[in-house]
Amino acid sequence: MDIASLIGLILAIGLIIGSIAMGNAPFSAFIDIPSFMVVVGGAFAAALICFPMGSIMKSPLIALKVLLNKGEDRLTMIKQIVELAETARRDGLLALESKVGDIQNPLIKTGIQMAVDGSTPEVVEEVLRTEVEAIQKRHKEGKSIMDQLGRFAPAYGMIGTLMGLIMMLQDMSDPSGIGAGMAVALITTLYGAIVANVFFSPFAEKLGLNSRNEMVSHEIAIRGVMAIQSGESPRAIDQKLRTFLPPKQRDAE
Amino acid sequence: MDIASLIGLILAIGLIIGSIAMGNAPFSAFIDIPSFMVVVGGAFAAALICFPMGSIMKSPLIALKVLLNKGEDRLTMIKQIVELAETARRDGLLALESKVGDIQNPLIKTGIQMAVDGSTPEVVEEVLRTEVEAIQKRHKEGKSIMDQLGRFAPAYGMIGTLMGLIMMLQDMSDPSGIGAGMAVALITTLYGAIVANVFFSPFAEKLGLNSRNEMVSHEIAIRGVMAIQSGESPRAIDQKLRTFLPPKQRDAE
Amino acid sequence: MDIASLIGLILAIGLIIGSIAMGNAPFSAFIDIPSFMVVVGGAFAAALICFPMGSIMKSPLIALKVLLNKGEDRLTMIKQIVELAETARRDGLLALESKVGDIQNPLIKTGIQMAVDGSTPEVVEEVLRTEVEAIQKRHKEGKSIMDQLGRFAPAYGMIGTLMGLIMMLQDMSDPSGIGAGMAVALITTLYGAIVANVFFSPFAEKLGLNSRNEMVSHEIAIRGVMAIQSGESPRAIDQKLRTFLPPKQRDAE
Amino acid sequence: MDIASLIGLILAIGLIIGSIAMGNAPFSAFIDIPSFMVVVGGAFAAALICFPMGSIMKSPLIALKVLLNKGEDRLTMIKQIVELAETARRDGLLALESKVGDIQNPLIKTGIQMAVDGSTPEVVEEVLRTEVEAIQKRHKEGKSIMDQLGRFAPAYGMIGTLMGLIMMLQDMSDPSGIGAGMAVALITTLYGAIVANVFFSPFAEKLGLNSRNEMVSHEIAIRGVMAIQSGESPRAIDQKLRTFLPPKQRDAE
Amino acid sequence: MDIASLIGLILAIGLIIGSIAMGNAPFSAFIDIPSFMVVVGGAFAAALICFPMGSIMKSPLIALKVLLNKGEDRLTMIKQIVELAETARRDGLLALESKVGDIQNPLIKTGIQMAVDGSTPEVVEEVLRTEVEAIQKRHKEGKSIMDQLGRFAPAYGMIGTLMGLIMMLQDMSDPSGIGAGMAVALITTLYGAIVANVFFSPFAEKLGLNSRNEMVSHEIAIRGVMAIQSGESPRAIDQKLRTFLPPKQRDAE
Repeated sequence: MDIASLIGLILAIGLIIGSIAMGNAPFSAFIDIPSFMVVVGGAFAAALICFPMGSIMKSPLIALKVLLNKGEDRLTMIKQIVELAETARRDGLLALESKVGDIQNPLIKTGIQMAVDGSTPEVVEEVLRTEVEAIQKRHKEGKSIMDQLGRFAPAYGMIGTLMGLIMMLQDMSDPSGIGAGMAVALITTLYGAIVANVFFSPFAEKLGLNSRNEMVSHEIAIRGVMAIQSGESPRAIDQKLRTFLPPKQRDAE
Repeated sequence: MDIASLIGLILAIGLIIGSIAMGNAPFSAFIDIPSFMVVVGGAFAAALICFPMGSIMKSPLIALKVLLNKGEDRLTMIKQIVELAETARRDGLLALESKVGDIQNPLIKTGIQMAVDGSTPEVVEEVLRTEVEAIQKRHKEGKSIMDQLGRFAPAYGMIGTLMGLIMMLQDMSDPSGIGAGMAVALITTLYGAIVANVFFSPFAEKLGLNSRNEMVSHEIAIRGVMAIQSGESPRAIDQKLRTFLPPKQRDAE
Repeated sequence: MDIASLIGLILAIGLIIGSIAMGNAPFSAFIDIPSFMVVVGGAFAAALICFPMGSIMKSPLIALKVLLNKGEDRLTMIKQIVELAETARRDGLLALESKVGDIQNPLIKTGIQMAVDGSTPEVVEEVLRTEVEAIQKRHKEGKSIMDQLGRFAPAYGMIGTLMGLIMMLQDMSDPSGIGAGMAVALITTLYGAIVANVFFSPFAEKLGLNSRNEMVSHEIAIRGVMAIQSGESPRAIDQKLRTFLPPKQRDAE
Repeated sequence: MDIASLIGLILAIGLIIGSIAMGNAPFSAFIDIPSFMVVVGGAFAAALICFPMGSIMKSPLIALKVLLNKGEDRLTMIKQIVELAETARRDGLLALESKVGDIQNPLIKTGIQMAVDGSTPEVVEEVLRTEVEAIQKRHKEGKSIMDQLGRFAPAYGMIGTLMGLIMMLQDMSDPSGIGAGMAVALITTLYGAIVANVFFSPFAEKLGLNSRNEMVSHEIAIRGVMAIQSGESPRAIDQKLRTFLPPKQRDAE
Repeated sequence: MDIASLIGLILAIGLIIGSIAMGNAPFSAFIDIPSFMVVVGGAFAAALICFPMGSIMKSPLIALKVLLNKGEDRLTMIKQIVELAETARRDGLLALESKVGDIQNPLIKTGIQMAVDGSTPEVVEEVLRTEVEAIQKRHKEGKSIMDQLGRFAPAYGMIGTLMGLIMMLQDMSDPSGIGAGMAVALITTLYGAIVANVFFSPFAEKLGLNSRNEMVSHEIAIRGVMAIQSGESPRAIDQKLRTFLPPKQRDAE
């Protein structure tokens, strides 16, 4: 589990709550439901205008994925590819049919299945690459939604603060209420800054990083399937795929 | 119908009106016709300087298109291409002449008509690609107008607020009027922030997304026409074009 | 004449003057010569540091060009090229010598003259392309000057306002003068925002658009000259060049 | 040692401390632990969400690397490569085996070891280039962490200031405390600006520059190893690699 | 001499001094040594962290170069190349040896010397291109230093103003001092805006423009040397190199 993101999130929220606790003002001074609705609701509304309904609905899932993303174990993946290559070398490509059910990586599974079914290497590669491109496009859209939320949240925070200031300025008969009115007006800007800098912007960065990492795993999978189909020796495949690992892992058993 | 954009728009406007309703200030405190004219009029004036008259006149239509855009049903398109391919295979290219009237997609229509008229594949492809490039250029201009409106609206909002502040500061003999004067000055900035973040910026994003999606449909159309003209088998065409669909749709009947 | 830019400019200025007229403050409250000099003079001074004297001197002309730019009539251009092609086909390339004087487009004129003088097609194309590149470089510099003016005007506006505030804060013995002092300080920021968003930034955008349009006309001219020199049939030239026109114009006589 | 970064850092900190010392306020007026925690803690928390734990943990080391980076002595490197080439020419590639232990540059070491072990030049080059790409990726991540810290620090500074203002506005019963309250609120923004502009942003720039410089050294190493393996004359290798040096160093012994 | 930059600089400074002179406040109100040190010292300190000591030390020289840059006279350069070509044609390449001492352009000098010494055209071109790349890299670093100074100066201006505000807010016992305190605080922001917008940013732009211009001269030099070495006719060289001149200069004697 990608514990760094979770720790970071808890730390950021903890620091903000801690600062409030250390101050003199009660917690209630920082809670204003309408302000929260303008910022978060407004950012989601703007995102709804920008993206299809289906993509927006999936965005909480995408956020969860940032916190729970485990990363593919590339070494295990390479070992499995090498094993498949050994079977294919010893008993022929068709012998892989019985093993397809055990493969977890969907790209390797699709590729091996197609190879067993007799598709030509060109067709197999094209299908796998089209698939990876589609995955990449979905990742980009996910990151893009977070980016837009992180851009619209402060904008709606400013809209809320401007509305609060206008209301406050409209009625200045009671000078003692000015401070409180202004405090409420500023809360919307605070909410916009918090949701953008604690959630949306860092999550967008993380999604970009995760996507770049996943692309490397996909490349290993495609190269592995192509090498198995072209009958390369398991040892050569092992050597070739291990260049994608960091130096320390390269010589691991 | 692309209901997400409409829902997003209603939600954003609803949140803003709702926040005002929940406050103490009357609605009238948020209405100022001259401020509205400076922001929206100013943004349109700046856009008029940037773009040809014809493109600006079409921009309300473009905005409507964001709300009502339905998206091309790519599966239906592929099925129609496969049907045309079957007819061409069975009865020859010329047999397609009677079917041209039924084709709705303008690119496929133009392409098939040209193929029937005896144009070479190279000429057909060049004409279709030139057409798609022209469509893309129009899309880019549409997005660009929205982008510029979203950039000039807050700028003219700031201009209006500065003018309001200067007027207010000019006459501070009546301290009780300062609050109201400042409120009016801030309304222009509020209007600029609202029209940019509720309308222009999200609409620009959406137009960009729609255009990228449409380009995929155009690619399917061109590839389909080229495949029909070169006499490929309907089954092969079907397989090839379905790689453009998301995985779930690929096996649909 | 490109009337949109002129209308946009008049509209933007009209809106600003109208808003002032509707307010209570006299026009004189918005006029401050030193502020104007700091903003416009400062922006031009910064541009003088950035660009050669000659380019800066031409910038008012460039601004005028935005307002009066007429656009090349591409259809007429294509017709003239086709006419030249017909003459060349009928009476030989040398027969074009007598017609060179009538050609208005300078690129076509240079190209035909060179062809008549016996330059090889490679040399003709290289000279014409070098010329177009030089035109494009001049356009880019023109746009770049407007961009920099639009960036430095608000910066000098802020400098002026800061100076005004410092002067005002220096002498607060007479509280009744604070408002007026602050109003004057803000005028510089207002001027910076107005000249950037009414003139420089939209003009820069327009110059970019005009340049991209002009490049298409230059491409038609070069392709036309090359086709004439290589002896293509007038009908083929006509067809080929018309793909550069929008669909509606393509079948025009 | 890259003394410029250290001098710059001391100078920047000295200027800030000096300015405070020259003012009337005590140093304690600029110290506020909770503000410091919100800014630095918040920026690190946001970075933790963006990047894997391991990369974040290494970031203080990376910062230290900026201060202590010595740069590779390229001339010495080239001389060593030429020496190896002379041995290889005189006594054969295998004679390099005894010298591998003396080579300090890890890329040259790996490359020569592989060459001695009989790997083909293609394999040697691929392994070295993959290694350099991995180094470059690590450098990019290091710079990216500094960039994000430099972006989030001012954002959390603003969050802290907004919280301080809201607390202060909540309780304005004692007007004499308003000034002090506002001062404390502003400290968080000050901290955000300082850590971003004294540490994170300049460090990110420096890391980018260091990485670009290191890439040149890596290129010299790879070209050198390839030239040795292909048996080029030591003199030719010397000439070729010296083109990577600045002109003044090129003729050095 | 590039008099535009000098005039621009004098004009910008004159406008600022003039505005102060026209106001009521004394000049001394705009002078604050500690503020100046925080802004300029801070920006240089940050640049010291980003760049090697040597590059920073050369930056005042680079700034002077902006003011005094004369530009290469390309027509004279072409004429000299043509002259060298005539000698080479008439008396052979070796006859150029006696003329090398008279050549001022260092690239032409190096190239001709190498050609006379018998280097192959490939080697000559590679050495000259490597040299031009190194020049370009130095130019980029120079521009980059100015860009960073123009970015850090306003940042340190803000840091100084925040420190001033915190000091002022700390001690509000004497209301009459608040105005003056705030004025001093704002001076740092003013200094940051002035040094960025009068010096660093325009100078960075100018350095970029100068570098692009110089690259064209270097291209003429390289092409000329290559043409001389390959024995092209002086007339052809003249024609070819003149396409790099603006149209008006092209037919000059």
